[in-house]
Amino acid sequence: SGLVLVKNPHLDLMEEDILYHLDLGTKTHNLPAMFGDIKFVCVGGSPTRMRAFAQFMHRELGLAGDGEDVADICAGSDRYAMYRAGPVLSVSHGMGIPSISIMLHELIKLLHHAKCRDVTIIRIGTSGGLGIEAGSVVITDTAVDSSFQPRFEQVVLDDVVVRSTELDKDLAEELLACSREIPDFPTLIGHTLCTYDFYEGQGRLDGALCSFSSEKKLEYLRRAYDAGVRNIEMESTAFAALCGLCGLKGESCRFHLL
Amino acid sequence: SGLVLVKNPHLDLMEEDILYHLDLGTKTHNLPAMFGDIKFVCVGGSPTRMRAFAQFMHRELGLAGDGEDVADICAGSDRYAMYRAGPVLSVSHGMGIPSISIMLHELIKLLHHAKCRDVTIIRIGTSGGLGIEAGSVVITDTAVDSSFQPRFEQVVLDDVVVRSTELDKDLAEELLACSREIPDFPTLIGHTLCTYDFYEGQGRLDGALCSFSSEKKLEYLRRAYDAGVRNIEMESTAFAALCGLCGLKGESCRFHLL
Repeated sequence: SGLVLVKNPHLDLMEEDILYHLDLGTKTHNLPAMFGDIKFVCVGGSPTRMRAFAQFMHRELGLAGDGEDVADICAGSDRYAMYRAGPVLSVSHGMGIPSISIMLHELIKLLHHAKCRDVTIIRIGTSGGLGIEAGSVVITDTAVDSSFQPRFEQVVLDDVVVRSTELDKDLAEELLACSREIPDFPTLIGHTLCTYDFYEGQGRLDGALCSFSSEKKLEYLRRAYDAGVRNIEMESTAFAALCGLCGLKGESCRFHLL
Repeated sequence: SGLVLVKNPHLDLMEEDILYHLDLGTKTHNLPAMFGDIKFVCVGGSPTRMRAFAQFMHRELGLAGDGEDVADICAGSDRYAMYRAGPVLSVSHGMGIPSISIMLHELIKLLHHAKCRDVTIIRIGTSGGLGIEAGSVVITDTAVDSSFQPRFEQVVLDDVVVRSTELDKDLAEELLACSREIPDFPTLIGHTLCTYDFYEGQGRLDGALCSFSSEKKLEYLRRAYDAGVRNIEMESTAFAALCGLCGLKGESCRFHLL
């Protein structure tokens, strides 16, 4: 049916669903009227960048006005920012798995309540590249954990639930084909390594509060490369797992800056 | 000596330390001049609340002016917000362990570079209470993981480093004594349960995307209470572990709203 699956039967029995961190709710807002026509959701860490992205989409889609005064739909909350440009929603998720998990829970329930159909969700932003040219974009086929396994372990109360972290292969190929239409836009498909920390988790000798050897770091990064990893960030396994759980077509495209 | 310990010998050999997510650095800013006299750092999730807290401290300390126009020291970054009122620094950390870990890494290095002495760091904000009166404040003696163990597992590359999550007992008692001077201010010392997720991790039947039984949730919460847990949130184990690692006197005080 193209609708968003929500595998919690309690949800449809509730009188009201408050999407607390987005400052939205089923009683306070007419979610189908506000969001029913959304077809694409782009998510990224920084609220400023997601605002700039919405302005960019506004211009690209040729919508009326210059789009400079795009309004934050979640202005009543300082946890996340949300903007729309036509059928495209642009939402920030902060940094790290718990932060993106909260946002995705509320966003996916929003799409469910709004009765959106055939939604594609794309994570955009920057990441650290591994053995690739600076300025490349990595489209993730599979997100992997620190042991390079395609899994996300979610603790539910004290049970560990293991979920798959494969993303949509057709969408990945479609995005790769788009990139080829643009000159000088190096783009590749690869695995994305997701860590729980920026400094210690990614072995930043020059930034961590603990110490470790540069040999160990090099050996780890070599193993990662050999396992197919092409970039490193902090949200992809949770993103892939939640998209998979709810039947959402999802992809992650990250730009390798340096 | 009261200085902040940083157990990474590489740090002092670096020509420049860029505290990227705070938009500060050792070459671009005179950190000892800006922060050398800081004695207290209060951290909390929401940037808006941390601004309000700095304004409150400004008034409480009787500083010149009304403090309404307090400036965000990290205005060049949208990842975190930082304000100061006299010797008190007020910093936001976003939601979840990875988000607070990045901020604490850069904050602790800032205190180190600024040569601050005898700094006390207190995490403030809200949390979910467990078997306690609404409006109570829980001062954490020990942060525990989802198995109620006083430990934080940090993945460093692919090694799991286990750190203690005990907080400063003297500081906890001192804060409890302060609370007793204020009428109608229910305050207690207890364990704080730290989860990796707000919905599934804390078993929110009414919010999670997966389903589970309310009996299982009740049984889990009963076990948590019996283990000494009095509130639940998402950052305390990482906070306690990093304070311990760097010899910082730290405490967490969270207000149970509902």
